[in-house]
Amino acid sequence: MSLIQPNQIPFDDPQLTAIRADLVTALRGFLPEDAVLERTEEVQPYECDGLSAYRRLPLLVVLPRTVNEVQRILRLCHERRVPVVARGAGTGLSGGALPLNEGILLSLARFNRILELDPLARIARVQPGVRNLAITEAALPHGLYYAPDPSSQIACTIGGNVAENSGGVHCLKYGLTVHNVLALTFVSPEGELIELGSAALDSAGYDLLALFIGSEGMLGVVVEVTVKLLPIPERAQALLAAYADVEQAGRAVGAIIAAGIIPAGLEMMDGPAIQAAEDFVHAGYPTDAAALLICELDGTNQEVSEQVMQVRNLLLASGATEVRTSQNDAERLRFWQGRKSAFPAVGRISPDYYCMDGTIPRRALPEVLRRTAELSEEYGLRVANVFHAGDGNLHPLILFDSNQPDELERTEELGGRILELCVAVGGTITGEHGVGIEKINQMCVQFTPDELRQFHAVKAAFDPLGLLNPGKGIPTPRRCSEYRQLPTAGSKS
Amino acid sequence: MSLIQPNQIPFDDPQLTAIRADLVTALRGFLPEDAVLERTEEVQPYECDGLSAYRRLPLLVVLPRTVNEVQRILRLCHERRVPVVARGAGTGLSGGALPLNEGILLSLARFNRILELDPLARIARVQPGVRNLAITEAALPHGLYYAPDPSSQIACTIGGNVAENSGGVHCLKYGLTVHNVLALTFVSPEGELIELGSAALDSAGYDLLALFIGSEGMLGVVVEVTVKLLPIPERAQALLAAYADVEQAGRAVGAIIAAGIIPAGLEMMDGPAIQAAEDFVHAGYPTDAAALLICELDGTNQEVSEQVMQVRNLLLASGATEVRTSQNDAERLRFWQGRKSAFPAVGRISPDYYCMDGTIPRRALPEVLRRTAELSEEYGLRVANVFHAGDGNLHPLILFDSNQPDELERTEELGGRILELCVAVGGTITGEHGVGIEKINQMCVQFTPDELRQFHAVKAAFDPLGLLNPGKGIPTPRRCSEYRQLPTAGSKS
Repeated sequence: MSLIQPNQIPFDDPQLTAIRADLVTALRGFLPEDAVLERTEEVQPYECDGLSAYRRLPLLVVLPRTVNEVQRILRLCHERRVPVVARGAGTGLSGGALPLNEGILLSLARFNRILELDPLARIARVQPGVRNLAITEAALPHGLYYAPDPSSQIACTIGGNVAENSGGVHCLKYGLTVHNVLALTFVSPEGELIELGSAALDSAGYDLLALFIGSEGMLGVVVEVTVKLLPIPERAQALLAAYADVEQAGRAVGAIIAAGIIPAGLEMMDGPAIQAAEDFVHAGYPTDAAALLICELDGTNQEVSEQVMQVRNLLLASGATEVRTSQNDAERLRFWQGRKSAFPAVGRISPDYYCMDGTIPRRALPEVLRRTAELSEEYGLRVANVFHAGDGNLHPLILFDSNQPDELERTEELGGRILELCVAVGGTITGEHGVGIEKINQMCVQFTPDELRQFHAVKAAFDPLGLLNPGKGIPTPRRCSEYRQLPTAGSKS
Repeated sequence: MSLIQPNQIPFDDPQLTAIRADLVTALRGFLPEDAVLERTEEVQPYECDGLSAYRRLPLLVVLPRTVNEVQRILRLCHERRVPVVARGAGTGLSGGALPLNEGILLSLARFNRILELDPLARIARVQPGVRNLAITEAALPHGLYYAPDPSSQIACTIGGNVAENSGGVHCLKYGLTVHNVLALTFVSPEGELIELGSAALDSAGYDLLALFIGSEGMLGVVVEVTVKLLPIPERAQALLAAYADVEQAGRAVGAIIAAGIIPAGLEMMDGPAIQAAEDFVHAGYPTDAAALLICELDGTNQEVSEQVMQVRNLLLASGATEVRTSQNDAERLRFWQGRKSAFPAVGRISPDYYCMDGTIPRRALPEVLRRTAELSEEYGLRVANVFHAGDGNLHPLILFDSNQPDELERTEELGGRILELCVAVGGTITGEHGVGIEKINQMCVQFTPDELRQFHAVKAAFDPLGLLNPGKGIPTPRRCSEYRQLPTAGSKS
């Protein structure tokens, strides 16, 4: 905690107050009254995102409505060297939208219009503040939907999805945000408007579109996004399998993929997660199981029928004690209900929990599950595992009580160890939640100094003054050399 | 031509000769005898790539065998400020591997080993000089293949595919190189070894992997590539449809995609291309047709059966005068035979031809085909159209005779006009052949000065001294301001 938790400058610090007053005057010159928030109670709701352990009051908050306003805000901040943190719905889990006491918080909440939806070309052109699910809702009447579906999809915005390269249950088959965005427009720190990508399949020049997606608000502020829409599959069916052993379930995942099947979703929960979910939503899960797999298949009628049979056989052959197949859509949704409410369910059985996000090659699943259980024992902290098993994206939930002395610190240390275990087996420290402020130390484990230097050089190519979301995503060499000296830290030399 | 054709420095220029001698001495310090080529007749085979209208002798050629040798070569060139052009098989069509008289040509031909093939994880780790088709050949015994299939796949290498982000007939369904590469290792201009991506689904930090793919050898030298392998589909079947009108065929393409079908390939040829192909390989094409569509479907038996019926109905409804369905694999391959030999077939009926590569939104197909015909008329040059219709990637072939005064110049001008037409309808100037030296002027039409500045900044973040493949891909502001003053040039302000 001590390494990460930022220093706080009081909101009423005289120097900050003077800077704030000057900026507000300049901003009101081109922004309407309601687009600048400057009082403590007004800026308070923006002090944190979904990683609420970290909080900081921003210098002030701006809520522009037009691209031109965003350009003028960034130009002003550039002239005056004021840092800027952009924010969508604030559902991020790695602190990417944590403000700076001395910086502006730029909310894109008012960029909430769908500008174009072309069912023939199967694209939607939207503003960044449009909610993920709102795109699908607008596309449904045309038999289309937007595939990436983070669990926060009711609330999270497409701009935030671009910043974090968000995934979801369906990304195993349909890809991450980067695979579903065709083009975007952003404003550079100097206030220039830049278009990346195109509605055509490929684009000339360096692939800055893919570079930009997942760059966590550090390269520019997105003001428009063009996404691909997909046709709704003819049929979807789910299987639920119970196991007496977590590693067996891990091996079943490998067997399904090896058989040439790409499920629309392939999710796993371990004993503590099953118990918590069942107590909460009564989905009818077998509560004596050590692990549960949920496998959803979609496609044509025939294809789904064949694959359901095949998966059922694979699950039984891999040692499942019970396999259920959904007989209708209501049952399919019930299978998912427990999984989808696993996070709040765990929230009910523990004062606090900390959601991790590591990604590993699928073959390492059994080993990582075993080592995580050992680490949980070592630290005396319960860990519930809920994850996108098909693509090796783990979400271990560490249960703790922040009122107990040291528990938050031990939790963070255990979390760090789990992430470093992911790196050690050839995986990465984030699947879909981003690095933000949360995993900045583990970046020192994931990457060599040369690799980190390359990241900084790319950052400087977009934002030479370092004004966009400073302190997030890419650690400084100094932070890394400090972190590498800690006794618990892994290393990559 | 005059704007592009580079100045030539004679191979025996005294200053070049002195630099060459010094470099050879230094290189022989750590490279074996056969890894350095310095005589005219030795370097001559490297004077051009597939865009043979442009030729330049390199200062010398190096053929390293190990990663360490590549690092030492780049370090030496960095110390002495010698430019480096990397080369795979030299099949590129945009002059990306055209050497510099004052620079080293670095051939990766000896990096031709498949390092690992894991059928369970469905990945192959290969050296960059491995041929595209060799990966599929190695994977076939496991029921797997590597999806991107440029028409040069017998010869072209995966390193070159990474440089150009190559596509092929199957990229409509299975994506470009960027969608099929999981990780790579490259050597920076300073000789550092950097890994990008991972075998896991996502990677932390900026997405430099996607940025690197398609960067045309300007950001680093690739020394290892990890690719995804896909299971061979159970069944593939093709349909051949003839049309009396090119625009009708264009609309049929839109209708197939709008119906929710993603063919494994959806290709189109116009009258002149059909005629040339039929005269050459006698595939049995209806030679009186104004346009031909070839649509391949793959997947499970049932899925293909259903889609073949659906596509057949769509083709007939869209005005096809004839629709054939392949009854077996031999017939399917015969359908493809004419398409696959279209380029050499056109080569037989014209002394020279120039292959373009633009990409447009599918809805613009009919309009672009009509405007291309008008331009062909205006310039008095025949144009045969052969292209990946499903993803809007056009390959107009301009037929000319370089022995006629002015014909090459007029051809290049017509080519430029066609590319600018692609930009005007919302497309891009390259689909899969890259920019290289060929399309550098059209980059000024595609991008604004601000966007080009951003490209240069990214280039500088990888290669601050500009030693890797200088003069390719991204035009300088000066070249663009000169080009924009030409009377025929389009513009993007």
